[in-house]
Amino acid sequence: MLQQTQQASIALRRLSYEQRAALLLEIAKLLRRYSNDILEANAKDLASFPTSDPLYDRLLLDAGRIERLASAVEQVSTLEDPVGKVLIDKILPNGLRLKKITVPMGVIGIIYESRPNVTIDVAVLCLLSGNAAVLKGGKEAFYSNTALVSILHKALAKSGLPTELVQLLPTDRRYTTELLQAEKYVDLIIPRGSQSLINYVRENAKIPCIETGAGVCHTYVAKNANLEMAAKIIINAKGSRPSVCNALDCLIVHEDVVESLAPLLKSGLEQYGISVYADEVSFPYFKRLQVPVTPALEENFGKEWLDYKLSVKTVKDLNEALAHIQKYSSKHSEAILTVDEEEAQRFLQEVDAAAVYHNASTRFTDGGEFGLGAEIGISTQKLHARGPFALEKLVTEKWIVLGEGQIR
Amino acid sequence: MLQQTQQASIALRRLSYEQRAALLLEIAKLLRRYSNDILEANAKDLASFPTSDPLYDRLLLDAGRIERLASAVEQVSTLEDPVGKVLIDKILPNGLRLKKITVPMGVIGIIYESRPNVTIDVAVLCLLSGNAAVLKGGKEAFYSNTALVSILHKALAKSGLPTELVQLLPTDRRYTTELLQAEKYVDLIIPRGSQSLINYVRENAKIPCIETGAGVCHTYVAKNANLEMAAKIIINAKGSRPSVCNALDCLIVHEDVVESLAPLLKSGLEQYGISVYADEVSFPYFKRLQVPVTPALEENFGKEWLDYKLSVKTVKDLNEALAHIQKYSSKHSEAILTVDEEEAQRFLQEVDAAAVYHNASTRFTDGGEFGLGAEIGISTQKLHARGPFALEKLVTEKWIVLGEGQIR
Repeated sequence: MLQQTQQASIALRRLSYEQRAALLLEIAKLLRRYSNDILEANAKDLASFPTSDPLYDRLLLDAGRIERLASAVEQVSTLEDPVGKVLIDKILPNGLRLKKITVPMGVIGIIYESRPNVTIDVAVLCLLSGNAAVLKGGKEAFYSNTALVSILHKALAKSGLPTELVQLLPTDRRYTTELLQAEKYVDLIIPRGSQSLINYVRENAKIPCIETGAGVCHTYVAKNANLEMAAKIIINAKGSRPSVCNALDCLIVHEDVVESLAPLLKSGLEQYGISVYADEVSFPYFKRLQVPVTPALEENFGKEWLDYKLSVKTVKDLNEALAHIQKYSSKHSEAILTVDEEEAQRFLQEVDAAAVYHNASTRFTDGGEFGLGAEIGISTQKLHARGPFALEKLVTEKWIVLGEGQIR
Repeated sequence: MLQQTQQASIALRRLSYEQRAALLLEIAKLLRRYSNDILEANAKDLASFPTSDPLYDRLLLDAGRIERLASAVEQVSTLEDPVGKVLIDKILPNGLRLKKITVPMGVIGIIYESRPNVTIDVAVLCLLSGNAAVLKGGKEAFYSNTALVSILHKALAKSGLPTELVQLLPTDRRYTTELLQAEKYVDLIIPRGSQSLINYVRENAKIPCIETGAGVCHTYVAKNANLEMAAKIIINAKGSRPSVCNALDCLIVHEDVVESLAPLLKSGLEQYGISVYADEVSFPYFKRLQVPVTPALEENFGKEWLDYKLSVKTVKDLNEALAHIQKYSSKHSEAILTVDEEEAQRFLQEVDAAAVYHNASTRFTDGGEFGLGAEIGISTQKLHARGPFALEKLVTEKWIVLGEGQIR
């Protein structure tokens, strides 16, 4: 199966950008035409979950969502071609012409959970960048994913391309394991989902991966912070959408300002119903506010809450804040709030994370917010892609050497 | 130990390019000053091997080699700084200033075999790019590597830097395994060595790797090749240095030209003492030359010979050549020899390899030949680095977001 996909990927390498973009427009058209089929399949998936289950909303497709999915595909079709960019073009002293250009990766495996729109989002990004896609979705979205992939197959067939360019693997976990070991047929794996999925991929993959994932995010309020601004940023970073990876997990506060800062947080903590896990120094100041507060345990630090919960750590100085971040950070997004430019510079330079912030909410770490167009994920590793990444990272490089008989 | 190295790497992040370059000059100076210590240690390693063993020459250091090592370090100190390059700098609609810059990886683990000069080569590339280095050399070079690392430590101490920035791991293999699993402390692993080492790394690493390695290289002589030129290229690609990864392993010949090509290869095959493993069609033409020839077995294809041996495969057309390459290539270096531009274009586009050649010897796949300066290795994977890579790939990216209280 994977071998067929690899073979099929050669056909894609021959297509011009215009042909790849036209394929995407065909996909958008068929998504609209067959939207009833999608809704029927989606209903079968939804039948297993009560509407109160948070999964229900993540799985749900309706006419509006399908229309947005189709127009997102049209949007992607207008993005700049990442393939064929000339990175180097020079004549060597021996007369060889040496070029380095961007080329498709080949076959990309994507492992993801629940939301069925991911099936379309990632498949079209792969196809536009000249890559075949092997998709492994979650079993809870089996019917929806099957319907969506059948639309992708119809569009491929209509465009005269092999349908093997997009494969949906069965939901059984052993297919994930096989995919992760198929280094002869698959060039890149992108896991999208929970930390446990990403750990599983890291343990089992023989194929290079771009890990996307957990964000244990800190914000440090320095002695010289504007505390009014700090309070707004903290409440936004924690409360606006706690289920995502760029949400605040641990507030670090300079000991001299914790007493003044705490009351400024009260209304925001109450508005969102945020529970505080406070260290020994900060505990009395939150207790006094009459908001839910618990003494912090060691396990409350380095924790990605994904919930209306916030740990608080008090420090003596920037060094202690940096050490805390180095120990507990997942290297996703880290912020400092201060009016002291020199202190901010040191933080921005020394903190090792995909995104570092001065006087802003970590919630901005996002491909859309950064203006990248369709985001594939947020890489928390350092190889190839770091932080939010998009289409341009789905390519690799190729050296082309043109000679007239040169030998070494 | 790795934790200390990670901690020490922060000190390196604070240094200017001038300070990093000065550290390298100090290393070069001390290599010369302590060359006797190095030679004494090297003699202890050499004592275990007869001079006839190929390992003896790979291990050997002498006054000339140490001088070349020191001047190579001076050369590296003049390379362009890969750190702090501004990749993106823009103001977002909400007023946030968004920058993307290059930053050091952090801690790089390098696993290598035999040649002790690698210890210095890779350590200085890491240090110049702001990275700490964890080195795991082979046990056959234990004394030499220990002496060289003690010189690195002297140079670090003289520059006021922590000596933990360069660690030499004990030669016991369990340290390799631990290194490969230390994802909290090590950011990148580069294995340099045999295919079995690289396979071991691939199976066991939880940390992102840049694989460097095996080259199963093909050269296809098309129907419309200039056969005189082809013969020179083939003999050069096979004979000039068969122990390296860019050497030719399998000659693919169009069936219409095999009879005319074989006699043109005779003198070159004899000059280097090359044995041929010929498929059924080509066998009689090589037999007739009275050079050593054996009927090719399946296992002779997809084989990296690293020796004066050459397999030969006859094909009907370009398609069959492309299919053979796709099946057996390690995606390192592949060449087509033809005067037909259209055929060459198709080959260059469809063959999936780090370097593809038209009318030249694959032996040019090399950082020095490509003008990259000091080569770290030749990547045979597609993520982050492909083909020969150097200093500029030892960095990652960091997003810096400067705000004035922005929330989302």
